[in-house]
Amino acid sequence: MEFAAYMPVWDKLTQAQRVTLASCVSYRTVKKDEVIHHGDVDCMGLLLIRQGQLKAFMLSEDGREITLYRLFDRDICLFSAGCMMRSLRVEIMVQAEKDTDLWVIPAETYKQLMEESAVLSNFTNEMMAGRISDVMWLMEQVLWKSFDKRLAGYLLEEAAIEQSIMLRITHESIGKHLGNPREVVTRMLHYFQKEGLVRLSRGTIEITDEPKLRRLSQ
Amino acid sequence: MEFAAYMPVWDKLTQAQRVTLASCVSYRTVKKDEVIHHGDVDCMGLLLIRQGQLKAFMLSEDGREITLYRLFDRDICLFSAGCMMRSLRVEIMVQAEKDTDLWVIPAETYKQLMEESAVLSNFTNEMMAGRISDVMWLMEQVLWKSFDKRLAGYLLEEAAIEQSIMLRITHESIGKHLGNPREVVTRMLHYFQKEGLVRLSRGTIEITDEPKLRRLSQ
Repeated sequence: MEFAAYMPVWDKLTQAQRVTLASCVSYRTVKKDEVIHHGDVDCMGLLLIRQGQLKAFMLSEDGREITLYRLFDRDICLFSAGCMMRSLRVEIMVQAEKDTDLWVIPAETYKQLMEESAVLSNFTNEMMAGRISDVMWLMEQVLWKSFDKRLAGYLLEEAAIEQSIMLRITHESIGKHLGNPREVVTRMLHYFQKEGLVRLSRGTIEITDEPKLRRLSQ
Repeated sequence: MEFAAYMPVWDKLTQAQRVTLASCVSYRTVKKDEVIHHGDVDCMGLLLIRQGQLKAFMLSEDGREITLYRLFDRDICLFSAGCMMRSLRVEIMVQAEKDTDLWVIPAETYKQLMEESAVLSNFTNEMMAGRISDVMWLMEQVLWKSFDKRLAGYLLEEAAIEQSIMLRITHESIGKHLGNPREVVTRMLHYFQKEGLVRLSRGTIEITDEPKLRRLSQ
């Protein structure tokens, strides 16, 4: 079964645990832009990505967004299974950034397996530690890093993900990602253009001086 | 041994695990204001508080601080044992806010015990889930804060109306007044209590630092 090849600690589970896990997972295909998980409204389970790209973000009462982290092939989204842990009071949204194939692991089954398997529980600890590190890093950025550095870092990250210096992305969506209004993004991008870091045209941002952009981001 | 009475999952550990744990912990007394843990410079271990008060905070390069959470009697500080998990890249500081007695559990021993004990590992997962929830909640406040100001203003208004700093009012009715769910009010009030702004007891909210509450509301 293909799931076995994607599930990180599969080899360290007992035969009985593998059977339990395999029999409860479901396979799902989601379209780009589809919102898969809504805050604490549902508890759909853990999402293991076969192929695609998801983003986890927070949404304010008045509709503002900020991206917490992204999930790529073989990554697992834990917070879509918030009901799994009593102490997890995290209201995030999960949305597909590309067409995505994934497996859903029901929270209840995963929780039961964690209770009997130190291996699975320790693996979950590591995932959680990774996420808390991401979120605390992001908080540092938001609190103490100026917006030009954050925007420069974001453009470099996008270029790395897309393997291209020609980014097809709107100012609006950059703003949502970074938690800033579109106007602020547009203004800073025009400043970057004047500085020779990027070239702007309709619907695209081309990185024209990658080394300088990298120095700025540091 | 007193440690046994403070260690949360002690009853669920095996005799051998108890012996291992008990033989490695050390007892320490720290004075108010002492910085116990410095970012990722050290990996002193987990801190289990017998009596006292610690705060965990982030520090920017230019010396700005933000308190992430506070630790009281019987709480455990996990992030002072960052080396315990590969994925934990969290640079926090821990400082005593009162004279504090605590036990230090070496990270390496704790990690070994977690690897063999699903109970200890799941307990650690719950602690981590609680911390990540705290941090994400705080980030929401930092990004989009408005409710804390509104709640602070509301409490001051009530105190003026009642000519008393002892408010007899339910979280439910505050929620109705401000248009927020009761849970949100309760959570913010607990945050206020940790910050020393109010003292909560059954059916009452006592304002304990009126000037600070007023500054917050502005």
